[in-house]
Amino acid sequence: MAKKIFELEKTSGKARAGTITLAHGQVQTPIFMPVGTRASVKTMGQDDLEEIGAQIILGNTYHLYLRPGHELIEKVGGDLHGFMNWKRPILTDSGGFQVFSLSDLRKLTEEGVTFQSHLDGSYHMIGPEKSMEIQKALGSDIVMAFDECPALPATKERLRESMELTLRWAQRSRNYPLRDSQNLFGIIQGGLHHDLRTECMERLREMGFEGLALGGLSVGEKNEEMVNFLENFVHTMPSDGPRYLMGVGTPLDILNGIKAGVDMFDCVLPTRNARNGQFLTHKGPMNIKKERFKEDKLPPDPECSCKVCRRYSRAYIRHLYLVGEYLAGQLITYHNLHFYLDTVRRARAAIFEDRFDEFYLAFYKEYSSNQYF
Amino acid sequence: MAKKIFELEKTSGKARAGTITLAHGQVQTPIFMPVGTRASVKTMGQDDLEEIGAQIILGNTYHLYLRPGHELIEKVGGDLHGFMNWKRPILTDSGGFQVFSLSDLRKLTEEGVTFQSHLDGSYHMIGPEKSMEIQKALGSDIVMAFDECPALPATKERLRESMELTLRWAQRSRNYPLRDSQNLFGIIQGGLHHDLRTECMERLREMGFEGLALGGLSVGEKNEEMVNFLENFVHTMPSDGPRYLMGVGTPLDILNGIKAGVDMFDCVLPTRNARNGQFLTHKGPMNIKKERFKEDKLPPDPECSCKVCRRYSRAYIRHLYLVGEYLAGQLITYHNLHFYLDTVRRARAAIFEDRFDEFYLAFYKEYSSNQYF
Repeated sequence: MAKKIFELEKTSGKARAGTITLAHGQVQTPIFMPVGTRASVKTMGQDDLEEIGAQIILGNTYHLYLRPGHELIEKVGGDLHGFMNWKRPILTDSGGFQVFSLSDLRKLTEEGVTFQSHLDGSYHMIGPEKSMEIQKALGSDIVMAFDECPALPATKERLRESMELTLRWAQRSRNYPLRDSQNLFGIIQGGLHHDLRTECMERLREMGFEGLALGGLSVGEKNEEMVNFLENFVHTMPSDGPRYLMGVGTPLDILNGIKAGVDMFDCVLPTRNARNGQFLTHKGPMNIKKERFKEDKLPPDPECSCKVCRRYSRAYIRHLYLVGEYLAGQLITYHNLHFYLDTVRRARAAIFEDRFDEFYLAFYKEYSSNQYF
Repeated sequence: MAKKIFELEKTSGKARAGTITLAHGQVQTPIFMPVGTRASVKTMGQDDLEEIGAQIILGNTYHLYLRPGHELIEKVGGDLHGFMNWKRPILTDSGGFQVFSLSDLRKLTEEGVTFQSHLDGSYHMIGPEKSMEIQKALGSDIVMAFDECPALPATKERLRESMELTLRWAQRSRNYPLRDSQNLFGIIQGGLHHDLRTECMERLREMGFEGLALGGLSVGEKNEEMVNFLENFVHTMPSDGPRYLMGVGTPLDILNGIKAGVDMFDCVLPTRNARNGQFLTHKGPMNIKKERFKEDKLPPDPECSCKVCRRYSRAYIRHLYLVGEYLAGQLITYHNLHFYLDTVRRARAAIFEDRFDEFYLAFYKEYSSNQYF
């Protein structure tokens, strides 16, 4: 039943390089997807995204449903691609995570989730069918099944209940007729319990999804626990479809994910932290506000080839940040996303040359040196 | 004593086309200068400015003196060009206007102005020598003499006093040794009084400036009064130097200025109004917030060739603006500055073809149609 959209091209240890073929183009994995919550990757024009080599971006169903509304997007643009004039692939999340994390007074039932908008308090219900309806209107290349994402820590009993609900919702998502151009990913839940995760994965496989995602990670557990879980679990996932680790993470998390066999990542960290003045560099995070950069003529990341590092000094960007110039957030965002995309490109190249572990160790060591702390 | 930096190439009626030769490059007039108050034209990277063909930008002495400080700029970058890595010409204002309009508890004496910073209440004194010291450190191609800018309406007596002070300050500015690469412009004050303005101009001429500016306009008088004044006065200014109308104005103000013989303009309007959702288009201002643009698939300005109008719809940008996405202000700013620069380029072309009046009438008629009100 599931379409085959992924071609595995090379492995290096458990790390994989492949190609995902979608209606709006091919995506070369491992890949990082910049987050364009409200039909915009914050401060980045679509031409900027093309310039840094973004191959696929993420849109948030919850936000787009509330504003401007999926009907408007479909009416004006035909789909989200047309609305924002982004011609490359798009993945949309299911809205589940935001419903649980952003809205007020939510009520969870078998049918779905009733919640009040975080914007105006209006009442809404999103369940699997509604989530599919919205994502169908958005015309995303990859649609995520509607799931419940419990906060960790949680009891195993609670996690099983949640997993069972997620599975019933997954089947209802799968039953919903999407556009021919769209692909549906199932979401594996189950906390840090290997047995629950495995059971969830097996039952999702039977439903026939075009790819599988790991949800419910980086939601409160220790980083070490997540890394261990990934190391032990990801390689057991089907090798003939893409593996997507949702909402993760730091540059090192992404390296660890790739090492464990993950193909796709998204995270707001490079964009959100940019607006707080944090450059992510080869030698670790750099808080540009620091006094030590006041007269620093060096580029933010001397090893980086992006247009920001080629043109501007730390002292200049620090000034922009401290006086509140918009350009500061724009420049840091551009660099950070370039850094993430460059990192996954280099990881892919290392996999093709079967020297991923070497790349991993060198990157890890350099990044962890935290030279700017 | 004054260097000759301006070559008059063509006239069409009173409108002029020429070239200003500066240390960092040539500027083709008539020209509009985007305002980069704090070493950044808001939301625009220096590459964006190059892309839209900005030939010269403006920096604000008052703001740069307070943050990050002219010494820091000189130390880090050698000058403002180096600090922000903008290789084309820069004009800096004298700081006078901001001292009078932004600071608290100012005290005006023959020596200069004592004021409290609008940022932290700290005390400072700027007079002609201090203004020159700051602008010398900034290394701007065009330095403005320190002047007093009285608010209109004002009595003629008050205006004369102010003019006399401005003239004494102009001489002190002229006496200050700047860099060889720098040029100094005198500022003509005198309100709407033709005789005061003429006297001020003649006395400034004797001091030998590389160009002359008209200050104290668009500061409270009726637009019609300003237009009439320009029409009657500008053509009496020296024809062998650049004529700069400070802080003006709307697209029609700029057309009227060019028609009267002005060569240089600056104004925050295209950048400031952008952040309030106002596109400036061939058919007048457009407030993108309006409900009528909700489902509008057209580009903001269908007659515009900028990258924003080539890629995005009104409906999309309206959405960005209403949800508060940074990209909205960035896109509108980019278009507005492109529109201003395109307008002066077209005016220049029309002057060379000696059809400026025709261009003026057509532009005026189309812009005044206010199609989006």
